[in-house]
Amino acid sequence: MKKLFITGVFIWLFFFPVTAQVTSAPFYLWESDSIPFSPYIDANHRVTFRLHAPQAKSVWVKSLACGLKPLEKDEEGIWTYTTPEPVNPECYSYAFIVDGTRFIDPANAYTTYSYRVRYSMFIVPGPESECYQNNDVPHGSMTRLWYPSQAVGHERRMVVYTPHGYERHKKHYPVLYLMHGFSGDEEDWPEDGRIAQIMDNLIAQGKAEPMIVVMPNNKLDQDAAPGYDRYGWMMPPMRNFPRNGDGTYEKYFPEIVDYIDHIYRTVTKKSGRAIAGFSMGAFHAAHLSKLYPKLFDYVGLFSGFITKEDENKSLVYSDLQGKLARQFAIPPKLYWIGIGSIDSGINGAQKFHTYLDSLGYSNEYQEVSGDHSGYTMRKEALIFIPKLFKK
Amino acid sequence: MKKLFITGVFIWLFFFPVTAQVTSAPFYLWESDSIPFSPYIDANHRVTFRLHAPQAKSVWVKSLACGLKPLEKDEEGIWTYTTPEPVNPECYSYAFIVDGTRFIDPANAYTTYSYRVRYSMFIVPGPESECYQNNDVPHGSMTRLWYPSQAVGHERRMVVYTPHGYERHKKHYPVLYLMHGFSGDEEDWPEDGRIAQIMDNLIAQGKAEPMIVVMPNNKLDQDAAPGYDRYGWMMPPMRNFPRNGDGTYEKYFPEIVDYIDHIYRTVTKKSGRAIAGFSMGAFHAAHLSKLYPKLFDYVGLFSGFITKEDENKSLVYSDLQGKLARQFAIPPKLYWIGIGSIDSGINGAQKFHTYLDSLGYSNEYQEVSGDHSGYTMRKEALIFIPKLFKK
Repeated sequence: MKKLFITGVFIWLFFFPVTAQVTSAPFYLWESDSIPFSPYIDANHRVTFRLHAPQAKSVWVKSLACGLKPLEKDEEGIWTYTTPEPVNPECYSYAFIVDGTRFIDPANAYTTYSYRVRYSMFIVPGPESECYQNNDVPHGSMTRLWYPSQAVGHERRMVVYTPHGYERHKKHYPVLYLMHGFSGDEEDWPEDGRIAQIMDNLIAQGKAEPMIVVMPNNKLDQDAAPGYDRYGWMMPPMRNFPRNGDGTYEKYFPEIVDYIDHIYRTVTKKSGRAIAGFSMGAFHAAHLSKLYPKLFDYVGLFSGFITKEDENKSLVYSDLQGKLARQFAIPPKLYWIGIGSIDSGINGAQKFHTYLDSLGYSNEYQEVSGDHSGYTMRKEALIFIPKLFKK
Repeated sequence: MKKLFITGVFIWLFFFPVTAQVTSAPFYLWESDSIPFSPYIDANHRVTFRLHAPQAKSVWVKSLACGLKPLEKDEEGIWTYTTPEPVNPECYSYAFIVDGTRFIDPANAYTTYSYRVRYSMFIVPGPESECYQNNDVPHGSMTRLWYPSQAVGHERRMVVYTPHGYERHKKHYPVLYLMHGFSGDEEDWPEDGRIAQIMDNLIAQGKAEPMIVVMPNNKLDQDAAPGYDRYGWMMPPMRNFPRNGDGTYEKYFPEIVDYIDHIYRTVTKKSGRAIAGFSMGAFHAAHLSKLYPKLFDYVGLFSGFITKEDENKSLVYSDLQGKLARQFAIPPKLYWIGIGSIDSGINGAQKFHTYLDSLGYSNEYQEVSGDHSGYTMRKEALIFIPKLFKK
């Protein structure tokens, strides 16, 4: 123990000041190799990516923060690219392409995850990204738990956010059911969606009501996110696609609501429940809310919609107009449709919005800047969640 | 939505059978590039690492599974190394060294994390690694939560495992407080330590009692693991070292026990509490158990120990013999010292064991194969945890 302490302090005292002088931005040592600090965000929000790769012939960085850009090598073999202009506040993912092979940044332990692919990540601070950061605000809890599913006959995994104070106060909380997209799993909202940070910040700012957020895995062929299920490490990533869209998930969805109402202190009525999702999750939210018109008073379709074309795939999807009529007979307090401004599905979302309007069903339609990605998904959450459960 | 479904199924149907024929081991496509399946574990437990890097001049893999080994390039630019012999069942971490730069495997989304460094990981199945896998057994829950700390005047993060059924049954559970090492944080046991899998499997096998496991961050200069604290992404990794070992963490530790007893259904007596830790966590467990002789009936030092040399650093560490005398006046039911067979601290652990013996204080000493690493830490947990809370 003692030896470890001394060695650690020694490394810290000895190397940090030395390496800090190598360039204008901080450096540190790792595993006896010098790894440059990357990414480095300066006071003007210019971002510097760095990679120590003396033998590489080309290094590129790919990110929404900068596009696809070549890094330049210095005499020590450190490749660098600095954005010429400040980068907009946002939570960014990126990767390096080193001699044609894609890697995450070895200097950056912070990654995000989307269905078997890891990306390096960083946040450029500012008003637009404030809700994605870990700020000095009261924090809620994030629980990974398993629920018994009659749909598949075994347990399945979900992630649940409970707001700050849930453990100590005895009050009951409303619940938002929040679903991932086609290529995702129950870790999408917690990781790429930064839902814990979004909820903590929105609640602390007084913009959102304290609520529970339930994030199930909405692919019945998975018990859980890859790496947490029984299939281990060796399954091809796309094995689970066929069973989506057959209506089974929607048919059994009330088992999730029942379980949550059983184990959490929830508001067990329509006015205390919201359902939303991104892309395929929006598809599920739309079908679930009309299939169970008494369950959800708030509906959010993030970058997704439904059409008559799915009607013959399952009884769950059949009779779109009739089911919508039953849903809007006791209309939800909010039916919100969001879509990215450059999402290729924008026409479909507009059409669904117009279709609802034509039937006289009150709904809100909002375009946010962005494509069909996690960036847009987070922006939609930031708009939708403050609208929920207001007195 | 519909377009996404069709595209996905199309990719799946079209590419998977094709790519599966490229080599004897399965391949898959990703992001329009062909990424070879890696690592691939065959039926005989030989492990194949693969990297598509046509322009690289050398690729090495580093892992306890194989040592440091060069990969060989084929005509398609895919580098491969296959272990000549079956690899022992274990949960392994590894990295590639490509032309001298360390990267994790871009084909493998499964990583483990140890204080700002990510490693790729895989499990070779077998009896010795069975408890590290996600098996088809009842699962407990893992909660990331924050507790109000008087020690620092703000909230700090911990991870809590609750056993299967906790949410639905009304019984009270014993608690193991389990602490990370010097270079770790509260994510060490959940990630590298695979504690959720270990607990689920040991309980399902009837080897361990159902219990709550509390994993605090035991570095007071951190609120939380890097990436979850207020300091964001840009801090050098070793900023937090100076405040370890000054006794403050131990002095305020009862605030953690009080909080857990307040928000969970715990057995609130000595016979229902265990404390253990790895390396620096063992140091804390030893000091905490003697500082609060009425709190813990089970003590586990994993690859760590204490000595008289720390006595003058803090009142918490002073009077080692006197405090041990008070602790063993009402002796704990178990005082267990584990150490890796090739840990450089083995002499210190043996000495502390002999010291306790010389004073007539009952303790168990056990060497397990391994060095001062997460591999040994997990083995120690597998031995220690089944000894707890037996009637």
